[in-house]
Order: sequence, then structure tokens, then C-alpha cells
Amino acid sequence: MSGRHTRHDLERTADDDALRDLEKMWHDSPERDLRWHPGLDVHDLDCNSTPGYDGNKGDGEALVAAHAAELDDLQERLFAEGRSGGSRSVLLVLQGLDTAGKGGIVRHVVGLVDPQGVAHRAFGVPTEKEAAKGYLWRIRNALPTPGMIGVFDRSHYEQVLVVRVDELEPEETWRAHYDEINEFEAEVAASGTTIIKVALMVSRDEQKKRLTQRLERPDKYWKYNPADLKARRQFGAYLDAYQELLERTSTDVAPWHVVPADKKWFSRLAVSELLLAALRSLDLGWPPADFDVEEQKRLLAES
Amino acid sequence: MSGRHTRHDLERTADDDALRDLEKMWHDSPERDLRWHPGLDVHDLDCNSTPGYDGNKGDGEALVAAHAAELDDLQERLFAEGRSGGSRSVLLVLQGLDTAGKGGIVRHVVGLVDPQGVAHRAFGVPTEKEAAKGYLWRIRNALPTPGMIGVFDRSHYEQVLVVRVDELEPEETWRAHYDEINEFEAEVAASGTTIIKVALMVSRDEQKKRLTQRLERPDKYWKYNPADLKARRQFGAYLDAYQELLERTSTDVAPWHVVPADKKWFSRLAVSELLLAALRSLDLGWPPADFDVEEQKRLLAES
Repeated sequence: MSGRHTRHDLERTADDDALRDLEKMWHDSPERDLRWHPGLDVHDLDCNSTPGYDGNKGDGEALVAAHAAELDDLQERLFAEGRSGGSRSVLLVLQGLDTAGKGGIVRHVVGLVDPQGVAHRAFGVPTEKEAAKGYLWRIRNALPTPGMIGVFDRSHYEQVLVVRVDELEPEETWRAHYDEINEFEAEVAASGTTIIKVALMVSRDEQKKRLTQRLERPDKYWKYNPADLKARRQFGAYLDAYQELLERTSTDVAPWHVVPADKKWFSRLAVSELLLAALRSLDLGWPPADFDVEEQKRLLAES
Repeated sequence: MSGRHTRHDLERTADDDALRDLEKMWHDSPERDLRWHPGLDVHDLDCNSTPGYDGNKGDGEALVAAHAAELDDLQERLFAEGRSGGSRSVLLVLQGLDTAGKGGIVRHVVGLVDPQGVAHRAFGVPTEKEAAKGYLWRIRNALPTPGMIGVFDRSHYEQVLVVRVDELEPEETWRAHYDEINEFEAEVAASGTTIIKVALMVSRDEQKKRLTQRLERPDKYWKYNPADLKARRQFGAYLDAYQELLERTSTDVAPWHVVPADKKWFSRLAVSELLLAALRSLDLGWPPADFDVEEQKRLLAES
């Protein structure tokens, strides 16, 4: 749990000047520095790089810690709004190859906020029932309700990733999903959900290192699956699939962010900052009282 | 977030001797010290007391911090087991009057473990569809799957609390629920779920203080509901309902724990310790590899 930080840490380590210094290590802003743009090809990405960010590991961890209290506060405002008739929510979509660190993001970044305000869902191979309902059915059912931060560990995008690479559907079928997904996400965004899409990109070498570690520690065996080797043989095909996915489904209402993930501290910083930026963009206040405060004070005093 | 602690805190504050000293402040063990027993009448309970525990606030917070790493570790083992074919899970049922601190427990205690392993569910007034399905339907649907820690903020017990106090069902109907609930929980326990039931008991005076605070801070208005005053007028009726609930549904497979909640630090300590005790009782190991580790190492090295 070493990546978790508390308000206490914040008070101890970061005064306002220090925070500003930490924030300035982003060239522009995390959401602009990491946003996918035409010309960004994942085949050429240095997964060990920290695009748009000049700080080192210590700086990055300090910034996550320094922003934790604000993240927590904004999440509570969002939750309060949802409980008071608001319709807005946030959805964080995490995609990445095996060992890219989706689980660590959930533990260390999503773990920074109140569990009451988080709806986390990991999507595995669809059950028969789910498959019969169409791939968006279980996704729709898992969308965050008002006030919540939804977190998808894998998502509808598997339909143009594993489904494509393993040829689980004919090409014309999975190719149709790009437009379907864009329409679906436009609808979700229009209903009040801010969508943050993150592609965590781990290198083939780093993946080997992480898989090897799982085989060296009996407390990590459960995370290892012999099928991971198959996906390693398909690494290039997955990169092709990611590239087309980015080109076809990075839209104004639901842009993709490409996050190099060989440095765990950087991917955690990046997602934490993207989540914070999304919450800040909502300009969240506190819901006004829908009752007469003074009258209630009087009634309560008498009670 | 001041109640959250990290492994880092643990390393800093608690060596093994200090931990033992902290643990010794329980007379016996939290699960025995807090377990409801015949003769324990909630009408007479001192909600500001710390039954079975001799420590003060600092001691209690230090113990939560010192146990956080173990809680985290055991939760991961449970999760690993669930991912490896195991069937066991844990269910924490939180009940309590308004302002008793259920939300704070979730934030500060449940927030200590990985969000991936937690299935949190808050039960409000049933929707029309839910009501039509019978009160246990939505409960069954929310039971933790293997490997998960389920957390119920309110539960099927509302059927013998608010339903009884507000006379939403005839007496013979809600009275039948005690046996139904016992049968249901026996079935849930038999399927591999360890059930921890906690009744958080706040005093009428402390409740008034907490409600008053909500009216004094605009960032807390959203937590205030004028209907809370009605429940205050029914305080005695709720105590009667809690007392009968404890007497009728504290069973060997799903015992109730009565936790005085006027001291927030104590209720958080108590629930954290009860959760830890439940996880310890499962004697959780790490799942063995279901593949040939050496062969996989060789294949991975070549990949």
C-alpha cells in the first residue's frame, strides 16, 4: 500500500508553493500532454518514457500525495451532487496488455477516494448469458449512476482487441464495433458522464520481467496464466489493434489517453492526474439545502 | 482521510512488541468482547463506552494502523483464492441509526483494502421493481462473489427496523422475517460466506450533536434530511426493534456485534478488528500454481 497517501501526508509535505512547483513539471497539463493525437503511433512509443512530464519518481509520488486531498474532496462533492438530484458521473476506462498495471492503478489511485463513491467493475470473458445479450449489454448495466466514479478494468474495447486478435468474430463484425462504440459513448457522455479512457502501454521486455516475477514468488502464482505466453506471441497484433482503436475511437467527447506504463509510478501519477482533471472540469460545488436551515435548527434543538 | 493508514505508517510506528501491547488492550478478543449475548439490552447500553477495550483514542488509531498491512494482505489472499476456484467470501453487514457512522466505517475501514476486492452496496428504499421481487431478492443479487468482501450499508434488516417502526407491513408479516432471515443467512454461510453483522449504536444526544453539525456547515447540508427528525421521535421504538432483532437473529453462523458508536475512533477500531478476525479465521494461504512453474519459466525466458 506504499502508493497510498493521506491528507496527513499532504499537510506534512506540501505547502502551496511546493505544490505549484510539483504541478509545473507537466509541460502543459496531463490531459493535453497524454491525449492521443493523429501521428501518435503505439508501435513507436517508448513505454519507459514520461511524456509531457519532467519530474522523477519522487516528484511524481509527491504530486499524487499532494493532490490526494483535492481528489477526495471533489469525489465527495460529485457524490453529494448525485445524492441531491444531480445526474453527472465519471467513468474511468482502463485498457492495457497483461501486466500493464491496471490492477495497481485501481489499488493505488482509485484507492485514494471513498469506496462508497466508486463502482469498480472488472470485465472478464463474457458469460454465455452476457454474450447472448450483445457486448454492450453488460457495459450499460455497469455504467456509473449519478454521483459515482465508475471504473472499468477492461471494457467494451475488448471487442476490438482480443476479439480481433483471436479472430473470435469475422472482420466485418468487429470492424462495425468502432462506430457502434463511438455512438454508445456519445450517448453516455450526453447523459452526463465524463469519460476518461486510458490505454496503458507496457513494453514487451517489461512485460517479460513482470511475468517472470510472478513465477518467482509463490504469492504471485495466482496472477500468472500460461495463456499470457500466447498473448506475448501476439504482441504485435495487439499493438496493431490498439493503434486502430485509438485512431477510430478517440473522439472529442471521449478521447483516449496513451500512458506509457513501464514506470509504475508514472502510470499511477498520470491516471491520478487525469481523474483529478476530469473532476475539476465539472466545477463541483456543494448542493444547497432543499430545506429551511434555520427552521430545522430550531426543530432539532427542540427534539 | 485522517483515519486511513498505510504500510508506511506501520513500519514507522509499530514493531512487534508495540503491536502486542496494543492488541493486549482488548480484554479477550474483539469478536468475543463485542458479540451480542442474552442479557445485553441496547436500552441500557452506554454508547460512549468501549466494551472490552482499555485503550484510548491514540491507542485505537495506532492499532488500526498497525493491523492495516495484515488486513490488506489477508484481503489479497482471499481475492487470490476466489480467482483460483475457491468459493469463500466475507460479508460485512452494517446497521445503525442515522449518524451512527456507517459511512465513516466504509471510508476509513473498508478504504484500507484494495477496492478491487470490495463489493460495496448501500440499500435505500426499495424501488417498485425491487419491492415486487420480495425483500431478499436485491440482497441475494448483491451477495459477494468468491474472493470478495461484500459490504452492506443497511440490509435486509431494514425489514424488521424501519418497516416495523413505520408500520409498513402488518405485524405478522414483519415478525415472520426473523426466521426467514435466519434461514437465509444459514444458507449464505453454508455457501462459504463468513458473515459479520455490526449494529452501530449512537446515543440520542450524540445524534443531536451530529445532526446539528450538518446544519452548521454548507458542505454537510446534503447529508441532512428533515425526515431525520421523525426518526429521532421514534428513537425508543428503534431501540425496541434493535433489541428484538438482536435477540432473534444473533445465531452461531451469523452472530451480531453491538458496537457503541459515540466515539468514532472506537467504532472504526471495532469494525476493523472484527473484519481482521474474520479474515484470520479463514486461515488463508496463497493458491498453489496449477501449472508447471519451471516449464513456464523456461517458456517465458524463450518468449
